[in-house]
Amino acid sequence: MKFKKGLLINISEDKLDPIHWKKLDLLADKKVSLPKDSPQIQTEIKDADCILTGFQIDIGRKEIDAAPNLRYVSVLATAYGKIDTDYARKKGIVVTNVPGYSTESVAELVFAVILENLREIARAKEQASKGNYSEAGFKATEIKDKVFAVLGLGKIGGRVAQITKGFGADIRYWSKNRKKEVEKQGIKYQGVNKLISEADIISLHFAETDQTKHFLNGERINSIKSGALIISTVPNEIIDLTVLEERLKKADLTFISDHADELDPRIAKRLSKYDNCIFYPPIGYISNEARIAKQEIFIGNMESFLKGKPINTVS
Amino acid sequence: MKFKKGLLINISEDKLDPIHWKKLDLLADKKVSLPKDSPQIQTEIKDADCILTGFQIDIGRKEIDAAPNLRYVSVLATAYGKIDTDYARKKGIVVTNVPGYSTESVAELVFAVILENLREIARAKEQASKGNYSEAGFKATEIKDKVFAVLGLGKIGGRVAQITKGFGADIRYWSKNRKKEVEKQGIKYQGVNKLISEADIISLHFAETDQTKHFLNGERINSIKSGALIISTVPNEIIDLTVLEERLKKADLTFISDHADELDPRIAKRLSKYDNCIFYPPIGYISNEARIAKQEIFIGNMESFLKGKPINTVS
Repeated sequence: MKFKKGLLINISEDKLDPIHWKKLDLLADKKVSLPKDSPQIQTEIKDADCILTGFQIDIGRKEIDAAPNLRYVSVLATAYGKIDTDYARKKGIVVTNVPGYSTESVAELVFAVILENLREIARAKEQASKGNYSEAGFKATEIKDKVFAVLGLGKIGGRVAQITKGFGADIRYWSKNRKKEVEKQGIKYQGVNKLISEADIISLHFAETDQTKHFLNGERINSIKSGALIISTVPNEIIDLTVLEERLKKADLTFISDHADELDPRIAKRLSKYDNCIFYPPIGYISNEARIAKQEIFIGNMESFLKGKPINTVS
Repeated sequence: MKFKKGLLINISEDKLDPIHWKKLDLLADKKVSLPKDSPQIQTEIKDADCILTGFQIDIGRKEIDAAPNLRYVSVLATAYGKIDTDYARKKGIVVTNVPGYSTESVAELVFAVILENLREIARAKEQASKGNYSEAGFKATEIKDKVFAVLGLGKIGGRVAQITKGFGADIRYWSKNRKKEVEKQGIKYQGVNKLISEADIISLHFAETDQTKHFLNGERINSIKSGALIISTVPNEIIDLTVLEERLKKADLTFISDHADELDPRIAKRLSKYDNCIFYPPIGYISNEARIAKQEIFIGNMESFLKGKPINTVS
């Protein structure tokens, strides 16, 4: 079984390695690739039985109604919030995503940015590159024995907790559901408000949902210990940025995020003026290993659907 | 019991926190503090019964013979190679050092510099600080599943191995003595030559001795896998730098060291021209926690000696 016509929306050449483009060719008789805002989408969608797309693309009631032959939407991302999965389900259209491919990549980035901050790595590297090998003026703190809070113990949070244990921190978590098997390994559960107020390091690991919006609300932000470090590899909506900015002004905590690209540029610019607000490009998910796994899962999803046994379905 | 006269050589004001200076005052009736090259040392040493000093200071036969009252030398460092401990022992002089205070600090730095390299952290931070949040062009590799070689499984190497295990790497070690209890935890032993040739990441953890000079010799350096990463937080003498430079020229491995300050400046300058040779100031040992532990052990050594139960003796 093959698709008759696959419509690729915003899947640019660089999104897949040549080997996976070849595999894709074997899965569809015809393939049409268009950028996000192309007016041609309206025409090409009419006879597509398969849409391949990224996470920023709207596939709503309008698009689904315009594609009477559509039976499958394959998202090359974990997030699929812009797809009307309820309506797709009603129409018998299967939607799949690519979950978990970057778990390790994101978890390791958390420690990369924590250690950069605790050890002044960028400054040290820059100074040494100029031939100045003096350690004078460098400060450092250890992860060991710090109260390290993982908020949200899903896949990524779980890995962050395991790595933290290796560092010998006082690792504690809060999550919607308690994980007794994890607790047996010395990863302690604590009530969320108490944990936030006692932590030296806080790492956020929630998906963006109605429940997690402003999870880090004003009261919680103001309860964070002086000198604490907050690492956010999650969407900005999870944090009340207005209150966070008030805390940043006091210069008694440090906030690190790799999601500044999703902020209103004026807000990003304003926040980045605080020395204790450190932004990174969204490099959490980009490891070679994650890139390969993502493509393999994506192609695997399509193959499984064609075999009549869809996996990673979200509709 | 107190010392009659403590002679401090090269222990500058900033080496101890006020609280420890106060404790020190309680341990000696008289205290004379002189910089390294002071000609006054010759005079002041004559009636000193205690010398406090750093690791760069010669306390040889000459100095010991000049100090007939000397009964104790306290080194504010782990290294004590410049002290003639054999001669001190013959004269009944106790020498103590400060071991192990920076174990965790050095072990965590190893991961700070590895992750900086694998995730391009300094470049990412710099770029984002200019308001450019694009991840385009960033490459990343994970520690997970990589063959991670710890060479020398002492205190620091042991901690590096434990942290590596948290990251889910294929952690293997070689050490002069096998550690069966560590092997039970999944840290595998491997013959040194085979391990060096199979490793993706190599972290060196030897003390400098006659046996470890050029431990990473030409043959071993040339056997290292293409693409490997070598982290040296140990003295440069452990590596054959001439052969290393030939490998660096081929640009197929990366070398990271925080000991460039101890290199001949001309060699440091030459090596630092290779993009795949990354130097840091010697910031491995400088964490707050290490600084405090170092002072506490140092003062504790003196107190124990005065109580007639010396600890951390090296003579």
